[in-house]
Amino acid sequence: MKINTNYLNLNESYLFSTIARKVNEYKAQNPDKEIIRLGIGDVTLPLVKPVVDALKKASGEMGIKETFRGYGDEQGYGFLREAIMKYYADTKRVNLELSEIFVSDGAKSDIGNILDIFSKDNTVLIPDPVYPVYADTNVMDGRKTVYMQATKENNFLPLPDESVKADIIYLCSPNNPTGAVYNRAQLTEWVGYALKNRAVILFDAAYECFVADKSLPTSIFEIEGAKECAIEFCSFSKTAGFTGTRCGYTVVPKALIVDGTPLNKLWLRRQTTKFNGVSYIVQRGAEAVFSPAGQIEIRRNIETYMNNANLLDSALAKKDVYHTGGKNSPYIWFECFDGMESWAFFDYLLTRYGLVGTPGAGFGSNGKSFFRLTAFNSYENTLKAVSKLLK
Amino acid sequence: MKINTNYLNLNESYLFSTIARKVNEYKAQNPDKEIIRLGIGDVTLPLVKPVVDALKKASGEMGIKETFRGYGDEQGYGFLREAIMKYYADTKRVNLELSEIFVSDGAKSDIGNILDIFSKDNTVLIPDPVYPVYADTNVMDGRKTVYMQATKENNFLPLPDESVKADIIYLCSPNNPTGAVYNRAQLTEWVGYALKNRAVILFDAAYECFVADKSLPTSIFEIEGAKECAIEFCSFSKTAGFTGTRCGYTVVPKALIVDGTPLNKLWLRRQTTKFNGVSYIVQRGAEAVFSPAGQIEIRRNIETYMNNANLLDSALAKKDVYHTGGKNSPYIWFECFDGMESWAFFDYLLTRYGLVGTPGAGFGSNGKSFFRLTAFNSYENTLKAVSKLLK
Repeated sequence: MKINTNYLNLNESYLFSTIARKVNEYKAQNPDKEIIRLGIGDVTLPLVKPVVDALKKASGEMGIKETFRGYGDEQGYGFLREAIMKYYADTKRVNLELSEIFVSDGAKSDIGNILDIFSKDNTVLIPDPVYPVYADTNVMDGRKTVYMQATKENNFLPLPDESVKADIIYLCSPNNPTGAVYNRAQLTEWVGYALKNRAVILFDAAYECFVADKSLPTSIFEIEGAKECAIEFCSFSKTAGFTGTRCGYTVVPKALIVDGTPLNKLWLRRQTTKFNGVSYIVQRGAEAVFSPAGQIEIRRNIETYMNNANLLDSALAKKDVYHTGGKNSPYIWFECFDGMESWAFFDYLLTRYGLVGTPGAGFGSNGKSFFRLTAFNSYENTLKAVSKLLK
Repeated sequence: MKINTNYLNLNESYLFSTIARKVNEYKAQNPDKEIIRLGIGDVTLPLVKPVVDALKKASGEMGIKETFRGYGDEQGYGFLREAIMKYYADTKRVNLELSEIFVSDGAKSDIGNILDIFSKDNTVLIPDPVYPVYADTNVMDGRKTVYMQATKENNFLPLPDESVKADIIYLCSPNNPTGAVYNRAQLTEWVGYALKNRAVILFDAAYECFVADKSLPTSIFEIEGAKECAIEFCSFSKTAGFTGTRCGYTVVPKALIVDGTPLNKLWLRRQTTKFNGVSYIVQRGAEAVFSPAGQIEIRRNIETYMNNANLLDSALAKKDVYHTGGKNSPYIWFECFDGMESWAFFDYLLTRYGLVGTPGAGFGSNGKSFFRLTAFNSYENTLKAVSKLLK
């Protein structure tokens, strides 16, 4: 018996445990000081009423013989896939087939599991800074990884480098952690690179709902040719507060063919073999997100978060601090004040103002003098944070 | 870009699609004839009231700011893992630590995903006949597979063959498709073999709740030494009708160490990187399975199914047909009448009696003259089937 020794090459991340330890030490030494947490990457507003009503109704159906549901299709119920198909058609003018949509328990699962269908011999291109899952899941498989540099010089939106050969490309837009959003011309460059190099783009669209600027694409499939070179991952987590309810979806276009094999067919085989679908109850909840009442209410929640993001964005602009995000993203990524490094800046904000954020160094070497704040706390707390940042 | 070409080595299974086609053809030709389906591998009784109440209550909590839950621990909420821990202690006299229990969306996912932590160089030992997921998931990884022969001679309970070297061993007891159940002495042999050969047993206990005979083990961990060589998979699917609600759990003992690396640590890393936990709502539903009222009601459902199984078992005994299962399992596996091969027997039962089951050939070469019936239809339909089988 041999283990997968690639696991031994994984770095342990101490980012969030170190933050927690530092905050606890500060609290112990300063029991009367208020702490404002803008490091939260989780939503805080509850599920909207149409979703809760749908969850309760579906729970009731499961208790009655005539409406009980056993195994569903691994790729999701038709009612939910149809709602997603309509959402793409109505809001992104992207036409999908039902069989191109796969419902899952979340984007993180699919982003990890999609690697099953690719050879270990591919080279992976990942941005720095990065959502750690992209890198770790490839370390687990022993794939060669090269990094693209996201820096102040390119506004944290790296573009293709023709001298770099990559087979699998991770793009996340709006980005976590930087909040930066690719425009149409930039995504067109990436699609061109992928088509030319026969690479596949794994496009993480988990934050698409925060894009307010209508000129910005919210799906890679808005770009011509993307259906021949991209897979898109999306989630109800941030869109509709499903971080604890668990539902997402992945789009694998039929036109995406590698060496004669449609990746849609491989992913279908992967999911039907190693997955048994998402809870019927949860899928009914997700369907309600797309109802007219559901859309109105989730939009209100998104606006609440974006109002917070805009407060932070304006404060940093006023202070003339270089930053990305905050406009079409719940994340704000900014240069640490006075040339500080990100951990020193973390200590500074905590001890001086009781303000907690996330040091950029935790997301990669290009984050070492940057800092991430999020829009998921309350309006009141965000206002307090802003007043402290402006001091 | 290269795909995982191991996928091209997978056999397409036409088992259930062929059955569906044959049944549809028969129905078209015989519109007035009644069809009785005893091929169902899915539960048919609805969720019990304590579970439905818990699902509704948790849905309501998610709609209120004070009780809303965002991301939970990937390995499951403490309340559910504590209930599982208590279930093992009370019903199996197996003491587990909380950190040895991982809640998931189902046993199929975990049985597939667990292979991530093992090297591709291991040799896998799989029974024939078999639940196809064991074989297919290893084909996807390109692992070498050897088969152990489950036949009439060993009552479909193969024991270790010292001349066969294997690193990963799949055992399923009560078995799908044969319904055969290993006794304590037999499992002790397997644990001995695994410890001697430094192999890991993947023990599928999805049907443990159907074991009525108190002398039979319902967990591999009832066997001394198993914590050093086994991982156990279990599910609420058949126990509590969760096939469409989706919840299961996997036990990875801390004492299971390969080349100095605890597999518990690897699985925790796999799950925290590629999974985000099960819906809070579903976990509350699963917790209610273990409540006193939940236990009484799920036991009543299990008895309903077992009553059907016993009917089939008695009928075959009366007819003096060799069979396994039916006593401590919802599956009945029997020798086709008059030396027929399983597909011919399928046609015979369908065209003569309108009775639908599953040909053993669909589960492996040792099933070619065997047939599977299940206990998941109604009492009335099972009675009808029995009267036809006894003709």
